[in-house]
Amino acid sequence: MSWYLEHAQPINQAVESQAEAYQLSLTKPPGSLGQLESVATRLAGCQGVVHPRLDDVYISIFASDHGIAQQGVSAFPQAVTTEMVKNFAAGGAAISVLARQLNAKFEVVNVGTVFEVDEHPQIIDERIAAGTQDFSQQPAMSQTQLAQALNVGYGAAKRAKSVGSQLFIGGEMGIANTTSASAIAAAYLGLPAQDLVGPGTGLTLDKLPMKAKIIDESIALHQVTEPLDILQTMGGFEIAALVGAYIGCAQQGIAVLVDGFISSAAALIAKALNPSITPWLFYSHESHEPGHKHILQALEASPLLNIGMRLGEGSGAAVVVSLMQSAVALHNEMATFAQAGVSEAES
Amino acid sequence: MSWYLEHAQPINQAVESQAEAYQLSLTKPPGSLGQLESVATRLAGCQGVVHPRLDDVYISIFASDHGIAQQGVSAFPQAVTTEMVKNFAAGGAAISVLARQLNAKFEVVNVGTVFEVDEHPQIIDERIAAGTQDFSQQPAMSQTQLAQALNVGYGAAKRAKSVGSQLFIGGEMGIANTTSASAIAAAYLGLPAQDLVGPGTGLTLDKLPMKAKIIDESIALHQVTEPLDILQTMGGFEIAALVGAYIGCAQQGIAVLVDGFISSAAALIAKALNPSITPWLFYSHESHEPGHKHILQALEASPLLNIGMRLGEGSGAAVVVSLMQSAVALHNEMATFAQAGVSEAES
Repeated sequence: MSWYLEHAQPINQAVESQAEAYQLSLTKPPGSLGQLESVATRLAGCQGVVHPRLDDVYISIFASDHGIAQQGVSAFPQAVTTEMVKNFAAGGAAISVLARQLNAKFEVVNVGTVFEVDEHPQIIDERIAAGTQDFSQQPAMSQTQLAQALNVGYGAAKRAKSVGSQLFIGGEMGIANTTSASAIAAAYLGLPAQDLVGPGTGLTLDKLPMKAKIIDESIALHQVTEPLDILQTMGGFEIAALVGAYIGCAQQGIAVLVDGFISSAAALIAKALNPSITPWLFYSHESHEPGHKHILQALEASPLLNIGMRLGEGSGAAVVVSLMQSAVALHNEMATFAQAGVSEAES
Repeated sequence: MSWYLEHAQPINQAVESQAEAYQLSLTKPPGSLGQLESVATRLAGCQGVVHPRLDDVYISIFASDHGIAQQGVSAFPQAVTTEMVKNFAAGGAAISVLARQLNAKFEVVNVGTVFEVDEHPQIIDERIAAGTQDFSQQPAMSQTQLAQALNVGYGAAKRAKSVGSQLFIGGEMGIANTTSASAIAAAYLGLPAQDLVGPGTGLTLDKLPMKAKIIDESIALHQVTEPLDILQTMGGFEIAALVGAYIGCAQQGIAVLVDGFISSAAALIAKALNPSITPWLFYSHESHEPGHKHILQALEASPLLNIGMRLGEGSGAAVVVSLMQSAVALHNEMATFAQAGVSEAES
């Protein structure tokens, strides 16, 4: 059996229930902290302790290029993928700033940029190829390349485990990867591409019908329905790495905070491959990318934030970590009614 | 002229425009950080520097009791207001935990609890009376008491200014104060009370028509339309203190982060009294309290968070500070396209 089909670690349901009961004893009306309450109690179940911690966050950015970029589906030239890899490592990208703010472990994994990148201590070179193939013409990658990309993600999950991280964020960078993610979601959900496509990094609205047409024709070309086949024929190396990382984290007992549109498409495939990972996935934000709501609905996800972010890189997830840290601090540090001598509600 | 009618400090529009131009130079697609971008550039305008800071937050919790509690409009007994004042000071309440997390200046201002509270270094005793009068029978407070309560809020704004705070959060505690806030909003917006009332701390749904009826009858009794008259006849001391604090902060050049339902009702009155404060007000979250959306609409507010919080105490605002701090860090620390050597979008 392939490693990615193996069952995720079980959640400690008994501890999660204890944490829920403990939440009810805190000096506030029951439920008045909204979703922050379930964030804390779910983390308690993941960590198997009534008072969870959220100090050590691991951020892996997977970067790769896409053959479909040749079809003119992005506002930015393909060189930007490589340029941004350097920017991540140099500390100037949004996710670099946020990782510093969180004091998170931070690494950039090159899964397949077209251009070479000089060695750098924060860049892990796991290039599978110089980008994927143009999936409007042929499968994006071979089965072997797909397996390699899934393994790259698993490797990141193992590194996160080895340093005791409590939360994993996978980010992505790849010019044209909203086209790949839209194709994956459209194929898997059986929706027309026009329900999924959006401007991505800034494609002008007049080009959206072209983007949708390329996706619909690609889906018709490949005729695939199985999650792995969809990922192989229309995915990207960085998206497959995210799939591997999400499954690997759940198998090793690390909670995952899913970022935006592209990460959610990866989560869709990861859950389809291995539904046991479901309780390990937390959802951070709803992207401005219009198709995201369809993917979130399919994932039955209620993300915490919706402020029009659409950058990728794991940036939306990184912004949401502080909300989760507030949830944990409130759960762990608030006084109970008994401790504070506060009267409870009249029945 | 009364102090609360004096014009707020002007925003530095030139600096805000410079900050907006600077945002466009950062290594990301324009607009891709969503609302985080305008948070940073608005703070730049407030502070008059292209690179604003958000390190020093001031949190004042105003606590007071309400005569309307005698009508059975709250799920909790009135003693809880006083008990929670002690819990705030002892560090066990939600806002106490969040204030510690933010390393914020934190004070509790007793504007009028029914029960006495022992002296405590974090509690400022400015009790105007042992709670307001029952506004279903008579005006909640006298004109003199209203002026006193507004001054209490102004005092907090002055303390925030004296320690150089960059952001002010006003919190509130007062059993039955969703009834007062709903009455204020219904009267000011000309809406039936049923559009504004909700369960507050946990009133059962079957009692909501009673809560609405008390409010509609009170509005009919007082027949007031001017903001100050509405505040005097149906407000609370802590709500009037919030009004005074918001106006005082804007006059002294301190940005305000408005919390939830009750704070927004105070913001409604504050803006009505003195519209010049508008650009100093930031909105943190949409409360689970169903009437909040009507108030936010009237305020033309687009709060950052909507996760079903409904605790008050300034807790929703305190949770949102970290999002604003991320916005500032991204604005100040990201590399520009030129610095990072990243290609810009193709036109």
